[in-house]
Amino acid sequence: MSTETVPAAPVTAALCIIGNEILSGRTKDKNIGFLAEELTGIGIQMAEVRVVRDDEAEIVAAVRSLSERYTYVFTSGGIGPTHDDITTACIAKAFGAKVARHPEAMRRLTAHYAHSGVEFNEARKKMAEIPVGATLIDNPVSAAPGFILGNVHVLPGVPRILQAMVAGLKPGLVGGPQVLSRTVACTVGEGTVAEGLGAIQARYPAVEIGSYPYFRPGGVFGTSLVLRGTDAVLLDAAAEEVRDLVRSFGGELIDDESAA
Amino acid sequence: MSTETVPAAPVTAALCIIGNEILSGRTKDKNIGFLAEELTGIGIQMAEVRVVRDDEAEIVAAVRSLSERYTYVFTSGGIGPTHDDITTACIAKAFGAKVARHPEAMRRLTAHYAHSGVEFNEARKKMAEIPVGATLIDNPVSAAPGFILGNVHVLPGVPRILQAMVAGLKPGLVGGPQVLSRTVACTVGEGTVAEGLGAIQARYPAVEIGSYPYFRPGGVFGTSLVLRGTDAVLLDAAAEEVRDLVRSFGGELIDDESAA
Repeated sequence: MSTETVPAAPVTAALCIIGNEILSGRTKDKNIGFLAEELTGIGIQMAEVRVVRDDEAEIVAAVRSLSERYTYVFTSGGIGPTHDDITTACIAKAFGAKVARHPEAMRRLTAHYAHSGVEFNEARKKMAEIPVGATLIDNPVSAAPGFILGNVHVLPGVPRILQAMVAGLKPGLVGGPQVLSRTVACTVGEGTVAEGLGAIQARYPAVEIGSYPYFRPGGVFGTSLVLRGTDAVLLDAAAEEVRDLVRSFGGELIDDESAA
Repeated sequence: MSTETVPAAPVTAALCIIGNEILSGRTKDKNIGFLAEELTGIGIQMAEVRVVRDDEAEIVAAVRSLSERYTYVFTSGGIGPTHDDITTACIAKAFGAKVARHPEAMRRLTAHYAHSGVEFNEARKKMAEIPVGATLIDNPVSAAPGFILGNVHVLPGVPRILQAMVAGLKPGLVGGPQVLSRTVACTVGEGTVAEGLGAIQARYPAVEIGSYPYFRPGGVFGTSLVLRGTDAVLLDAAAEEVRDLVRSFGGELIDDESAA
């Protein structure tokens, strides 16, 4: 029986974006990049993203599949008061739960609309319908709560509101070891360093090395070599080898922070 | 036997983005919105997007699943010269095809590098390895071709290059009836019009009505009501009903083009 320390299993997440408006191109997504950065920062690795139509069968299938595979699932979109907001019903269906008017959600929405001069009508009361057994997610912007059911965290699609709600959720999310990164940006084409880079990757299996060519206005181009891993010492050693490789081809190293 | 005209089945597409850099949040995706708009413009409905890791099993499974379900599949990312570029091998595996050095791809890359002063080394020759039976996709920016295998169109991840390659592909893509849209933007909250909007939606099943609240800097907010469908006459009639609904609540209509 081995007594070696087994590295902790990575904590993973998936995002399911529910929205015809993203798929038609009318609305440009801003939630993938935001959530990816936030989760990376607390040791949760975003492992998959899906964008699905406002269609019950599609949403239920995607949420079930992602919920089984990843530690956390986040959904965005489809929890408003209109006929096209079907996310809550779909999540309930995915977990075999009933939906009921949630007293605390009603209280928050009642208070919110009492101060707004806007009628808290039947359509808006739909935003207080929550799957039975779910926990509410605070919405400090527009009151209508999200919810957590199983490992699925249901959020709205409007980036400003989603961002505020994720800020509130973060202290309750349990990440694994944080994935650190080092970027070596350089003026050498990626094909030039490819062979040497592959050799460094083979020597550092615990470091994930990605190569990303970039093109800036004015014909400036180069390569960002990105090293990711949980061990800072290994990461620094691998990054130094990558810098040596770039120098061996007469390449110029660019200040990492300014790299594309 | 009915002699009614059956509407043509929609022509659908899916995009599979292959890239750890999107999932880590380091690179912000620009390809979903671009491709969605381009396809919508030629009568192809983007029906699903997935972002998957640089992992053979994940890529193969996603491509197979999407290829079976949609008319067209597009992939972006992972066709460069470095060790982390595994898309070509994965697509070949998904279709049970072999990969071989493609003479025309070799010719294009040889010509490109002859003029560049950069060595056409073994790593760069990897970009000429194409699944047997695939058709090349022209790359007017950096020569390295994409390819079409079955219904899967393999493109690079760099937005500027992907965009140029899609421009070349478009004349060969066969769309269905173009989905038209009308936007009614207004100062009324979506909860206010929700009930009436649902009633309009029920009367116009061939029109898809979406409701999107928006928030602009300076506390300006409102709702964009978006109607989509292939029949311009129906669309205009439904849009007029939506405008009447907004007016019935004393709402102000905002110039559609400026709507968020």
